[in-house]
Amino acid sequence: MPTYKAPVRDFQFLLFDVLDIEQHKALPGFEEASRELISAILDEAAKFSEEVLQPLNAVGDEQGCRLENGVVTTPDGFRQAYQTLVENGWPALTADPNYGGQGLPNTLSQVFNEMVSSANMAFGMYPGLSHGAYSALLHHGSDVLKETYLPKLVSGEWTGTMNLTEPHCGTDLGLMRTKAVPQPDGAYQISGQKIFISAGEHDLAENIVHLVLARIEGAPEGIKGVSLFVVPKFLVNSDGTLGARNGVSCGALEKKMGIHGNATCVLNYDGATGYLVGEEHKGMRAMFTMMNEARLGVGLQGLSQSEVAYQNALAYATERLQGRALTGPKQPSKPADPLIVHPDIRRMLLNLKSFNEGARALLLWTALKGDLSHKSPDEKIREESDDLMSLLTPVVKGHLTDRGFALAVEAQQVYGGHGYIDEWGMGQFVRDARIAMIYEGANGVQALDLVGRKLAQNGGRAVFAFLAELATFIETQKNDEDLAPLVKALEVSRADLEAATMWFMENALSNFDHAGAGSTDYMHLFGLVAIGYMWGLMGQAAKSRLKDGAPDAEFFKTKLATGRYYAERVLPETGLHLTRIRAGADMMMSFEVEAF
Amino acid sequence: MPTYKAPVRDFQFLLFDVLDIEQHKALPGFEEASRELISAILDEAAKFSEEVLQPLNAVGDEQGCRLENGVVTTPDGFRQAYQTLVENGWPALTADPNYGGQGLPNTLSQVFNEMVSSANMAFGMYPGLSHGAYSALLHHGSDVLKETYLPKLVSGEWTGTMNLTEPHCGTDLGLMRTKAVPQPDGAYQISGQKIFISAGEHDLAENIVHLVLARIEGAPEGIKGVSLFVVPKFLVNSDGTLGARNGVSCGALEKKMGIHGNATCVLNYDGATGYLVGEEHKGMRAMFTMMNEARLGVGLQGLSQSEVAYQNALAYATERLQGRALTGPKQPSKPADPLIVHPDIRRMLLNLKSFNEGARALLLWTALKGDLSHKSPDEKIREESDDLMSLLTPVVKGHLTDRGFALAVEAQQVYGGHGYIDEWGMGQFVRDARIAMIYEGANGVQALDLVGRKLAQNGGRAVFAFLAELATFIETQKNDEDLAPLVKALEVSRADLEAATMWFMENALSNFDHAGAGSTDYMHLFGLVAIGYMWGLMGQAAKSRLKDGAPDAEFFKTKLATGRYYAERVLPETGLHLTRIRAGADMMMSFEVEAF
Repeated sequence: MPTYKAPVRDFQFLLFDVLDIEQHKALPGFEEASRELISAILDEAAKFSEEVLQPLNAVGDEQGCRLENGVVTTPDGFRQAYQTLVENGWPALTADPNYGGQGLPNTLSQVFNEMVSSANMAFGMYPGLSHGAYSALLHHGSDVLKETYLPKLVSGEWTGTMNLTEPHCGTDLGLMRTKAVPQPDGAYQISGQKIFISAGEHDLAENIVHLVLARIEGAPEGIKGVSLFVVPKFLVNSDGTLGARNGVSCGALEKKMGIHGNATCVLNYDGATGYLVGEEHKGMRAMFTMMNEARLGVGLQGLSQSEVAYQNALAYATERLQGRALTGPKQPSKPADPLIVHPDIRRMLLNLKSFNEGARALLLWTALKGDLSHKSPDEKIREESDDLMSLLTPVVKGHLTDRGFALAVEAQQVYGGHGYIDEWGMGQFVRDARIAMIYEGANGVQALDLVGRKLAQNGGRAVFAFLAELATFIETQKNDEDLAPLVKALEVSRADLEAATMWFMENALSNFDHAGAGSTDYMHLFGLVAIGYMWGLMGQAAKSRLKDGAPDAEFFKTKLATGRYYAERVLPETGLHLTRIRAGADMMMSFEVEAF
Repeated sequence: MPTYKAPVRDFQFLLFDVLDIEQHKALPGFEEASRELISAILDEAAKFSEEVLQPLNAVGDEQGCRLENGVVTTPDGFRQAYQTLVENGWPALTADPNYGGQGLPNTLSQVFNEMVSSANMAFGMYPGLSHGAYSALLHHGSDVLKETYLPKLVSGEWTGTMNLTEPHCGTDLGLMRTKAVPQPDGAYQISGQKIFISAGEHDLAENIVHLVLARIEGAPEGIKGVSLFVVPKFLVNSDGTLGARNGVSCGALEKKMGIHGNATCVLNYDGATGYLVGEEHKGMRAMFTMMNEARLGVGLQGLSQSEVAYQNALAYATERLQGRALTGPKQPSKPADPLIVHPDIRRMLLNLKSFNEGARALLLWTALKGDLSHKSPDEKIREESDDLMSLLTPVVKGHLTDRGFALAVEAQQVYGGHGYIDEWGMGQFVRDARIAMIYEGANGVQALDLVGRKLAQNGGRAVFAFLAELATFIETQKNDEDLAPLVKALEVSRADLEAATMWFMENALSNFDHAGAGSTDYMHLFGLVAIGYMWGLMGQAAKSRLKDGAPDAEFFKTKLATGRYYAERVLPETGLHLTRIRAGADMMMSFEVEAF
C-alpha cells in the first residue's frame, strides 16, 4: 500500500527562504503569519493529511460513492475525516474574519491543499469546492446572502458546489438551458439539469450550497444572458435554522475513471428556490471569480499526484532488488542491486523531483501574487501582482496538470508490472490525476485563455513584465559560478518564450488560428520557463543559506543540483515548442474534415 | 459507447502499394498470398473484429474475470467469441502447415492482430499468448513435444502461456526460484510460484499449455541455470486425449488498472509434471524466441489503442457542437460549430492520425523483415532483414507503446469531461494501453536492449545499414517537390540519430551509465526517425499511385499531407532527444540516494 509524507521541509524552504513571506508582515493577514504559526500549521496539516486522510485514499477508490433513494453515501471513514477537518477549523484558515475566518494569507491554503490532495484527492475536493462557493458569495453576494451562507461555509458545517455544465454544454456556456423564473418575493424558481457536479450530494454536511448558472426568462441569448444563483439543498429559515428540502436532487452518480471517493452528480433542478448572486445576466463575471481560484487549486492537484507518486516510486526504487548496476555490482553481498542504481530509473525520479519542487514553488509564488494583488497598500504592486497572477493561472492549471499526470505515469513505470496492480496504488494516482487535465476548463481551453486573452491584455503588459523580471534575474545571476549552468539554460529558454510571444503578436492578430495552433505549446513553453525561473530563485535562496552556514547543508546543495538537472534535461524542451508554434496553423487547417 | 471500424483501406495501401508484398511471391508462404486472398482476409478479419469482438470490449472491462474454487470464468460472450475465432481458423493463419497451419507470411498476423487488439485488447491476448507458446515449441521443442502440442495450439483448441515472473523476480530472471526435479521417466517435477501470468487460467479452451522457466536442481546460479519447460494444465495421454489434471493451479487473479477481460493469474506449481524444451540451462534462448515475437505484438497493442481512441475522438469532434471557430462561425445556422473547427483539436487529432498510420507502416515493415529473415533464399537478405528486425523490435515495442498510450490520453482529452466518464469508453483505452508500456520487458528495458545490445552487435552493422538506407532514400527523394518538406525534415532527424549513435560509440563504452542515461531518449529518437522514414515510403507510394491516375485520389493526397504534418510538428522532437543524450549520465549519477 502506498504511503505519504508531507514535504514540510520543502514548504518551509519556500515560504521562509525563497518567498520570504515575513517581509510582508505589514499587510493584513500577514501580520499574524509568523514563522512560529506557519510552522505549527505545517505540522498540523501534515499530521492530518498523513494520519487521517491518506489511509482513506485507497478505500475511497475501491468503494466509491453510493446513491440510494436520492441519498449519497461517501466511502467508509470520509464522514469522520470531514468531521475532524471541521473540528480542527481548517475551512476557516484563510477565510474572512468577518464570517468566522482566520484571515491568513491565501498562500497558506495552497500549502494545506497540496497536502490534502496528495493524501486523498477525492476527499480534498469536498472542502475545495466549498471554498469556491465561499469566494463567489463573498465577492458578489448581497449582505443577506453573505450573512446567511458564509459563516456556515467558513466553519465547514455546510459545503458548496459549482454548477455550470449541462449535457449539451460544457465549455460553451452560452448554450445553457437551465431556467430561472422570477418570483414575487424576489427569489427565482430554477429548473434544468446540471451534470458533472463534484460533491453535488453527499452525507458529510447537513446542507449543501449550490452555486448555479441559469438563464432568467427573457434574458439575452448566449453567454450574456446567464446569471448566477445560490440554491441551497435545504432552505434556510430567517433564524438560520434549516427549513424545507429544496427542489434539487441527485439523479445519478457518474461512473468514472478515478476520484471515486468524490460524488460526481447529475443534479436535477425542479422549480428549486434560488437567489440571485450579483447582477442579472452577469453570472459569468461572478463565476470567473470562482473559476480563477479553482484553477490554481486544480493545477495543485496535478502536482499533488505527481508528488505522492514520486514518494512511493522512490521508496520502491531503493527497496526493490533487481539486476545489477551497468558499471558493476553496487551491493555485491546482496542478490541484486536496488533499482535506483540505474540511470534510466534516476532519470524518471529526477524528472519527478525537479518538476514537483519547481511546480510547488510556482504555485506558492503565484498564490502570493494573488494575496498581494488584494492586500498590498501600493496600487502599483496590486496591479503588477494581479497581472502576473492572471497571466500565470492558466499556465499553472495546464502545465502542472499535464505534467503532473505524465509524471505520475512515469512513477508508475518505475514499479514495472507491480505498477499496474491495484494493490500498489500507483494506478489510482494516475487515474485521479487524469481529471485535473480536464475539469475547470480543459487544458486546451486554458491554453486559449493564455494566448487569446491573457497575452494581449493591456497591450501585453503582463507578459512583458514577466519577461523583464526574468531578464533582470538572468543579468544579475549569470556570472554566479554555481547558478551559471541553470541561468544560461534559462536565458535560452526565456529567449524562446520571448520569440514565441513576438511570433504571436506578429502573426496571430491577422489569423487567430495561428494562436490556436500554437496555444498548447505556448502554455507548456511558458510553464517550463516559469519553473526554470523558480529553480533560479530557489538556487539563489539555497546559496544564501549555505553562505550563512545554515545547518542541513545537504538540503541546500541538493536544491542546486536538482535545479541543474532541470536545466540540463527539462528546459531544453522549450526550443521544440517554439519550433511547433512557428509552424503555424496552415498545415492543420488545410485538412478537409473528410480527410481525417 | 465507442465503436471501431477496421482500417482496411490503409492496410491495403501498406501491403500492396508501400510494401508491395506481391514482389515476394516466389517465397514460401508468399506464393499463396495473392492480392485476392489478402483482401478477403482483411475483410473477414474486419468483420470478426467489428462485429464479434468490439461489442464485448466494454463488457469485459466491466465484468472482468472471476475465480471461484480454482475455476476462472471469463466475461460474458468471451467463450462464444473464442469459439468463433477457432471455427474461422484464425489461429492457423500463419502457422506451419506441418501442424495444420495455413503457412501465410507472419506479416499478415500483424494485420489481424491489430484489428483484434483495437476491437478488444483483453480478448486478443488469449490467442496472442498461444502464438508465443507455439513459436517456442516450434523452434526448440522435441518432435514428440511438437506433435503433442502444436496441432492443438494451431487449431486454437488449446491455448498457451508464458511463465517468467515470480514475486521477487521480474526483469532479473537470474533470481528465479521455481524448481525442476528430474524424474526417472525423463520428465520433471515443477514447483514454485509464478505471477502476472496472462491467460493463465480460463474457460475458453479445454487445455492450457504453460511454458515455464525453472531451475533444474543443481543448476548453475543465475540466468545460466534457467531451463524452459512445457507444463500442460491437463496431462496428455499418448493417444492425444486429455489425462489427469496436472499440479498447476490458479491461486489468485490480480486486480489491475485495465485489460480486465484477461485473466492475470498467480499460478502455483506444486510438483507439476513438465517436459524440457530445448537444452538444459538454455531456457533463456528459447524464451527469447517467444519474447521477440511477443514484443512486436505488444508494440502493436500501443498502436491499436491509439487507433480506436482516434476513431472515436474524431467522431466526437465532428459531432459535438461547442463554441465557434476562432475565425468566425463555420456553421452559423447551428447553435455552435463542431469541435473540429479548432486548431488545438486538429493538433490532437493529427498527432494521432500521423502516428497511427506511420506506426502501422513501421510494424508491417518490421514484420516483413522478420518474414524475409526466415524465408528468403538469399543469405544476405536473410542477414540484413534479421539485423533490421532485431534492431527495430525494441523500438517498435517501446516507442509505439509510450506514444500509443500518450495519444490515447490525447484522444480522451478531445472529449472534455465526457472522456472521464466510463460510459464513453475512452478511459478503458487509456487503462488498457497502459500495460503495453510495462509488460514483455518494461520500456526502459527495451531501451537498454537497444543501446546496450542491438547497437553494438556486429560492430553496429544493423544501425549503420539503417542509416545508410535512409541516406539513400533522402538523397534520391530530396529534390522531389511534393516530398521535399518531409525529406528535408527527415534529413535533419536522421542526422540527429546518427549523431546520437556516434555519441554512444564514443562515450558509452568507457562508461555504460552514459548509455543508460540516454537510452530512453535514443529509443524515441529512433522511433521518430523510423516513422518519419515510413512517411517517406508512404509518400513515395502515394505519389506513384497519383501519377498512375488511381481512383480515390483524395486518399493519396491525404497521405502526402499527413506526412508533412508529421514532418512539421512531430519529427522536430529528435533534436531534443539528442540534446538530452549528449547531457550524459554525470548529473543524474551524482545524486546520493539520500538526496532524492
